Amino acid sequence: MKENGVIQEYTGSLSRQIREEYHIGEEYYHGEIKRGLRNSDGTGVMVGVTKVGSVQGYLLQDGQRIPIPGRLYYRGIELNDIVEAHRAEGTFGFEEVAYLLLMGYLPSQGELRHFNEIMNRARKLPEGFTEGMIMRRTSGNIMNELGRSILSLYSYDPDPDDLSVDNLLRQSVELIGYFPSIVANAYAVKRHHFGGESLHIHYPEEGLSTAENFLRMIRPDKSYTEEEAHLLDMMLMLHAEHGGGNNSTFVCRALSSSGTDTYSAIAGAVGSLKGPLHGGANAKVMEMFHYIQENVDPHDDGSIRDYLVRLLDGEAGDRSGKLYGLGHAVYTMSDPRAVLLKKYARHMAQIKGYEAEFDLLQKVEELGIPLVQERRHSDTPMCANVDMYSGLVYTMLDIPEDVFTPLFASARIAGWCANRMEEVITGHRIMRPAYRAVTIRGHYVPMEERTSRIKEFDL
Amino acid sequence: MKENGVIQEYTGSLSRQIREEYHIGEEYYHGEIKRGLRNSDGTGVMVGVTKVGSVQGYLLQDGQRIPIPGRLYYRGIELNDIVEAHRAEGTFGFEEVAYLLLMGYLPSQGELRHFNEIMNRARKLPEGFTEGMIMRRTSGNIMNELGRSILSLYSYDPDPDDLSVDNLLRQSVELIGYFPSIVANAYAVKRHHFGGESLHIHYPEEGLSTAENFLRMIRPDKSYTEEEAHLLDMMLMLHAEHGGGNNSTFVCRALSSSGTDTYSAIAGAVGSLKGPLHGGANAKVMEMFHYIQENVDPHDDGSIRDYLVRLLDGEAGDRSGKLYGLGHAVYTMSDPRAVLLKKYARHMAQIKGYEAEFDLLQKVEELGIPLVQERRHSDTPMCANVDMYSGLVYTMLDIPEDVFTPLFASARIAGWCANRMEEVITGHRIMRPAYRAVTIRGHYVPMEERTSRIKEFDL
Repeated sequence: MKENGVIQEYTGSLSRQIREEYHIGEEYYHGEIKRGLRNSDGTGVMVGVTKVGSVQGYLLQDGQRIPIPGRLYYRGIELNDIVEAHRAEGTFGFEEVAYLLLMGYLPSQGELRHFNEIMNRARKLPEGFTEGMIMRRTSGNIMNELGRSILSLYSYDPDPDDLSVDNLLRQSVELIGYFPSIVANAYAVKRHHFGGESLHIHYPEEGLSTAENFLRMIRPDKSYTEEEAHLLDMMLMLHAEHGGGNNSTFVCRALSSSGTDTYSAIAGAVGSLKGPLHGGANAKVMEMFHYIQENVDPHDDGSIRDYLVRLLDGEAGDRSGKLYGLGHAVYTMSDPRAVLLKKYARHMAQIKGYEAEFDLLQKVEELGIPLVQERRHSDTPMCANVDMYSGLVYTMLDIPEDVFTPLFASARIAGWCANRMEEVITGHRIMRPAYRAVTIRGHYVPMEERTSRIKEFDL
Repeated sequence: MKENGVIQEYTGSLSRQIREEYHIGEEYYHGEIKRGLRNSDGTGVMVGVTKVGSVQGYLLQDGQRIPIPGRLYYRGIELNDIVEAHRAEGTFGFEEVAYLLLMGYLPSQGELRHFNEIMNRARKLPEGFTEGMIMRRTSGNIMNELGRSILSLYSYDPDPDDLSVDNLLRQSVELIGYFPSIVANAYAVKRHHFGGESLHIHYPEEGLSTAENFLRMIRPDKSYTEEEAHLLDMMLMLHAEHGGGNNSTFVCRALSSSGTDTYSAIAGAVGSLKGPLHGGANAKVMEMFHYIQENVDPHDDGSIRDYLVRLLDGEAGDRSGKLYGLGHAVYTMSDPRAVLLKKYARHMAQIKGYEAEFDLLQKVEELGIPLVQERRHSDTPMCANVDMYSGLVYTMLDIPEDVFTPLFASARIAGWCANRMEEVITGHRIMRPAYRAVTIRGHYVPMEERTSRIKEFDL
């Protein structure tokens, strides 16, 4: 960047000072402060009421968290039942899930057929969009391209700021259609621009499901198997919604509470999901998994356990001291999404020759949990979360790591839109929390009485 | 948009059903739910600790809110003192305020001079940015162009995802420099593209303050008076920061808590400020003011009062039943920013022949407050907020309405950046609140047993 060096040199020399000025001791976080919007017992602060999604990982009894097997409900219906029904019938479920989340009830056959026809139309990006927007000074980060693209779609919308329910629903349907197309094209452009590979841009095909279309669009030869499409369809169902409190959905609701437009609110959600503590977690699991693969004997539990201890001690891997993919803010005994993934991904592992990887990941789960519990001096049940297995599943589907989070977004857009509509319809209050101010009161010192704190900028 | 009509027809027919499905009765909001992140007494939920800014409008005593004159502190220093010092000296204050917010202390002369030199560099947009990004399928909404531009800057940053303090500070300084340049150019492009006017793109000039540069850039002939530049400089100082809890800053912090990049977090804040309940409020005041001007005798208090009653009854103006510009979530007796604006804008009103408008606005404040209090059956003190006067001040500076909120953003970017750095340095926890799920538990109904709720989509 022009001049970047000069600015960088300047800010670099100020950063030690900043670390001092910004320091806030733990003693200031006492009392009623809900850091991370959490109560002191670790439960989330109740900030609203929702009919969209519900996450259960424990019961509260006499102020105690009682662990239970995890459950996830979409509009009151258990995710597990939805997935199992589609697996049994051999049908694609993501479109039904999107309809359920947006509309509040399961569609009849006629309603679903009509919705699918509308989705066929909604998948087509505006004319020239890929060439004019996605190919424009591409950043190489697909989540960034996705956020930019969403804000750009504002200018293709004849009525971007209208908050009527009709209009919000229209925008929602369009965005659910657009997301996989933007991701597939941004991936193609990235591969071409930064990877030196040929550019393949395929249009979505009418009559195919979201999962089929996505595989078709990202593969140069458009080929995919039914087995692959159904596994991806399950991934999309699993990731479509997770209650109002997850960071990206909450950001979307907080933005929506200011009365802003759909594109601003959804781009905010995409920006949140981009964060490594949120949507980026599955890539962290894969990174950790590669370290483990390189450093252990997969048939020797002792060797695996020893390496996990080294990871926890911050002596190996990314030296963060973390085991990624274990534990969850809400789930205790199990994450229902991880349970479904393990159940249905094994067959793909057999087909594609990933059984050894699958077994090793299970070992990491099995041996890692007691190690983490031991460190925390806690026997509270703890489980592998959805990120533990989703990276390997994507890998088995030949989906590269930088598409993991964008695919997550392509599913979660259904939940974001439903939560945004709910916020606009039922919220009626701009979110405005408080922060405890802990600065010592100063007074304005005239310029001639001030002294430099950074010696090199002294007069 | 291609196919837009078909999708719109489809979603339109579903929207009545959605209003029913999404309905949530007031009875579900009982107990511990912090709707709008507010406690039951209207105070904000404490979600964190901050050293950046502090807003005081009341004292809490035995659980009661005791109204006090409003005060706003930047890093512990009262805004009023900063503004008065610069007015007395005839100096420009926004750069000092930005330094104070970012660095935590008032700069020495050498430090400020160095910062100003760096700001001169930071104001220059990357080469080709205006032509390639801002002129590209412009939306005509400058806040949307600003958000898009910020996400696009990600691709010009050699190190967009690095969360080190050095890097965050570099990005912050660049963004504080870029904002007014993007806004000025987006405004020029909008005027040209949608207004049929000539295109004037002026580069910022070295050695000028942010306020001078902004006026220079938005005016075709680059001319401005010292008086105008100082009034705008005060506006920038007033709007630079308002504590961690205002919606846009809070969105920025919530995004930052996921570990996402600076561009994602700041674009989210811009998206929030775009909302009519947040940054768009000053335009609402001007709209109301125009209705009032057309419908009252400015020299007859009775006529003004009658019209305000009609506004409150939802029988006039935008029929929202609201008086814009009155009341504030935190301030009670006074908003210190409105106090400063009234004090220093009167002279400009005299120079520019806006005295009648200024007087009428004061009348709206004076007569409006008791009317609102009466309706609320409350004698709690209530004040005009900053939005009441800022629209008129911008108008006196020949700044058009669609640049009001972007200018607000060009000031608040300093506060957003400081709050983001604080979140990254001190937060350490992804924000994840909870929502009370109130859907009645359903079960998965097989397709053949479902019936259509929308008759026209029946089989």
